[in-house]
Amino acid sequence: MSQKKNAGASKVIMTEMVLPNDTNTLNNLMGGRLLHWMDICGAIAAQKHANAKVVTASVDNVSFAQPIRLGHVVTMQAGVTRAFNSSMEVFIQVWGEDVPAGIKVATHKAFYTFVAVDDANKPIRVPELIPETEAEFELYKSALRRRQLRLVLSGRLLPDEAVELKELFTGK
Amino acid sequence: MSQKKNAGASKVIMTEMVLPNDTNTLNNLMGGRLLHWMDICGAIAAQKHANAKVVTASVDNVSFAQPIRLGHVVTMQAGVTRAFNSSMEVFIQVWGEDVPAGIKVATHKAFYTFVAVDDANKPIRVPELIPETEAEFELYKSALRRRQLRLVLSGRLLPDEAVELKELFTGK
Amino acid sequence: MSQKKNAGASKVIMTEMVLPNDTNTLNNLMGGRLLHWMDICGAIAAQKHANAKVVTASVDNVSFAQPIRLGHVVTMQAGVTRAFNSSMEVFIQVWGEDVPAGIKVATHKAFYTFVAVDDANKPIRVPELIPETEAEFELYKSALRRRQLRLVLSGRLLPDEAVELKELFTGK
Amino acid sequence: MSQKKNAGASKVIMTEMVLPNDTNTLNNLMGGRLLHWMDICGAIAAQKHANAKVVTASVDNVSFAQPIRLGHVVTMQAGVTRAFNSSMEVFIQVWGEDVPAGIKVATHKAFYTFVAVDDANKPIRVPELIPETEAEFELYKSALRRRQLRLVLSGRLLPDEAVELKELFTGK
Amino acid sequence: MSQKKNAGASKVIMTEMVLPNDTNTLNNLMGGRLLHWMDICGAIAAQKHANAKVVTASVDNVSFAQPIRLGHVVTMQAGVTRAFNSSMEVFIQVWGEDVPAGIKVATHKAFYTFVAVDDANKPIRVPELIPETEAEFELYKSALRRRQLRLVLSGRLLPDEAVELKELFTGK
Amino acid sequence: MSQKKNAGASKVIMTEMVLPNDTNTLNNLMGGRLLHWMDICGAIAAQKHANAKVVTASVDNVSFAQPIRLGHVVTMQAGVTRAFNSSMEVFIQVWGEDVPAGIKVATHKAFYTFVAVDDANKPIRVPELIPETEAEFELYKSALRRRQLRLVLSGRLLPDEAVELKELFTGK
Repeated sequence: MSQKKNAGASKVIMTEMVLPNDTNTLNNLMGGRLLHWMDICGAIAAQKHANAKVVTASVDNVSFAQPIRLGHVVTMQAGVTRAFNSSMEVFIQVWGEDVPAGIKVATHKAFYTFVAVDDANKPIRVPELIPETEAEFELYKSALRRRQLRLVLSGRLLPDEAVELKELFTGK
Repeated sequence: MSQKKNAGASKVIMTEMVLPNDTNTLNNLMGGRLLHWMDICGAIAAQKHANAKVVTASVDNVSFAQPIRLGHVVTMQAGVTRAFNSSMEVFIQVWGEDVPAGIKVATHKAFYTFVAVDDANKPIRVPELIPETEAEFELYKSALRRRQLRLVLSGRLLPDEAVELKELFTGK
Repeated sequence: MSQKKNAGASKVIMTEMVLPNDTNTLNNLMGGRLLHWMDICGAIAAQKHANAKVVTASVDNVSFAQPIRLGHVVTMQAGVTRAFNSSMEVFIQVWGEDVPAGIKVATHKAFYTFVAVDDANKPIRVPELIPETEAEFELYKSALRRRQLRLVLSGRLLPDEAVELKELFTGK
Repeated sequence: MSQKKNAGASKVIMTEMVLPNDTNTLNNLMGGRLLHWMDICGAIAAQKHANAKVVTASVDNVSFAQPIRLGHVVTMQAGVTRAFNSSMEVFIQVWGEDVPAGIKVATHKAFYTFVAVDDANKPIRVPELIPETEAEFELYKSALRRRQLRLVLSGRLLPDEAVELKELFTGK
Repeated sequence: MSQKKNAGASKVIMTEMVLPNDTNTLNNLMGGRLLHWMDICGAIAAQKHANAKVVTASVDNVSFAQPIRLGHVVTMQAGVTRAFNSSMEVFIQVWGEDVPAGIKVATHKAFYTFVAVDDANKPIRVPELIPETEAEFELYKSALRRRQLRLVLSGRLLPDEAVELKELFTGK
Repeated sequence: MSQKKNAGASKVIMTEMVLPNDTNTLNNLMGGRLLHWMDICGAIAAQKHANAKVVTASVDNVSFAQPIRLGHVVTMQAGVTRAFNSSMEVFIQVWGEDVPAGIKVATHKAFYTFVAVDDANKPIRVPELIPETEAEFELYKSALRRRQLRLVLSGRLLPDEAVELKELFTGK
């Protein structure tokens, strides 16, 4: 498929209210539930770019700094950053909001990778992604380094071959 | 509270994927599940306007024309149309989307009313709503007639007293 | 189908206990969850009358006056009031009950409309409904006016054509 | 508490629709889900008799003969059969119904025992139960034998002391 | 099938955290939820022995002595005790654990029976079970008496024919 | 707390059956659901080591290679690999199993980090972890490098300061 699509076309906003069963005994949103929501949100973004079914290929390192409380509102915004053959990297930003108090805090950022598949679960080609804004271009560029890290971490690339990533450590 | 807030400040977008347990035996989204999702989406919009906890006061007549299929994506957009003392009318639009096929259809529209309450569940005053765009102004104006219909239907207003509504039937 | 069925044949009683995930942060049953339960209860009543699969066509204006608390029991009673070709109006009454305290309160009333469909989701004819008790006859008669209101509200009937409904406002 | 209550006062009817997540890979209702629903239905019946919170004390042997299919309706009817100090035996009957086909089959019967407790989870006395119909009287009488079996099975009664139960095996 | 399998081959360990929706208003795990979890755990054990789909045939008398609290961890261990043609008895042990406090208590024991079925839901033969440890042998032997009790309780065996069970009451 | 605990003391086994609502439209387990389950399983392991409440601090890069099908059984095994002041790294292995077919496949490996907290959500010290088996010792040693990578990725450590990690790229 030689088609190209703009980064903006895959943007998805998802909103969830933190209910009792989403919380631990401290009344904070459990990390696993958020990972689950981000996966759904990211999958929809990837589907929009690929116009195909998608399966989760990987999730990058995610840190949980800020707790989100019972009754608060979780807003997620996802968008594809770059497409590689059949896989797409999706950037997901998360905000926790105490709506009655009017306080909204950026709490998490994550990168998920999805693969477009046909009905037999076989990978299929996806359109190339065209970044337009400066932020989109920045994410597009750094996607290469994150992809190398993923391949190194999953043992499919030798550290020595991860050129862009290696520069981070060697300064060359 | 003499505060005023713009209509735009209460806008909420919510996205859900239709999972097996949301469907009837025809593999279509059940109406009741959608009513539930719209209630949560509308409640968040009302909370944003009121900066307070809210409870559902009423839902207006909702028609279900277009079925939404298993695996499709439901997008809801909600916003407060007008505030009355402690209650707020919220307009909710719903789209069903077959994302792999790239087909998105406007499927439902609904008006919910929410009341802002304190921790003892007592109604509290909410800010006045200021419409800015033409669409917001149109919804703001017609909110009065819908409110009269609600009051008539719940027996709290005599048909004769519903001046704006009556004109619809008598042409005066 | 020239078959006729008594109103009593579609009666359904449904009982639910309010669990934590059904409640808002005030520990009261969320309106949307109740709309969902009423939809399931009403759909079963319509299925009983039609002996067919049914889909939700509309829900009339519903007001939420009385909150129902966490741990309380919700009882719903549904029954078809009148059949029109392929659609059926269902009346649903709701009680909230603090069982340990022995206090049961009528909290909600709602009218849902369902359409009987075949496996291809196409409307099919349903039996005529025969009211027997006085209450059933009353609901049967007023169903016509509510149907006109639904058609006017969804833009499928001009206010002027809604004869029985119009009388409510013009007194003629 | 010297109060007495009729058996009829504790009757509860509960209705559930079998959804995808309630089924095994054969599309039949899982036994465990039914045991869960019967527990809730029985607990409400016991609460009605005791006008108190209740906890499940035991469930008797339950056999699963008839499968109930995805999309079918499960109706449960529960009622207290006899009260013993702080515990109550509840009889629960279950029907599976293919509503579109108009076929309703009695599928299960079960006896659950509940104990009335105060807010500190301590057992409290419940009213005596008065059977009125012949069926209620029959269940009331046989409750004694089932109670002995429960006590024998849980090691709190020697087989020799279970007089009524023993007659079943020895014919004396 | 003349195949034989060791008892150890069917062992399953399942762990669940008690979340808000699993609890009653006393913040204790509801009995019905535990019955549901034990059914899933037992079904997996039976599947492992039978290498086939299984359906729940019966659950024996279960007593609930110890409450398990919100936030505590439930550990279940299941294993087939004996196979009879197409049915298997599974023994399930349950522990409740307050992990932060380091307190783990054996709370429940239950026997479920499952039947192996083909895709048409017809019973199929299962391998014979070979007990190896002393505990497995003990459960294997007593399985016969429990089976007789099940057959007597479900009316498929006359008390007089339940030889091993009868001895319990008559001492002969 | 100067207490030390063996690695074996934190081992947890969790088993889940893949139900319809856990799957995507290809009938495979959704990645997000698995991330959620692994989080619960890992949290229990961390609680066991810390004897305290824990919150998720981070999840490392996870790759999803093998799909797990509807009706299959997911087994997870978690254990703490190393403790650092108030945080613990947990290693989680996942197997997917087609039980009727007798096929069990190792499908995923993940590292989650948890922090032990008191009731005010403040980090508290956890016991030192003592590896005993060779596999435990290997994980204990490599935990340091993974921790450096986490700190670099979350911007809390300069690449140059991650001595053990840097060797991976520079070969020194």
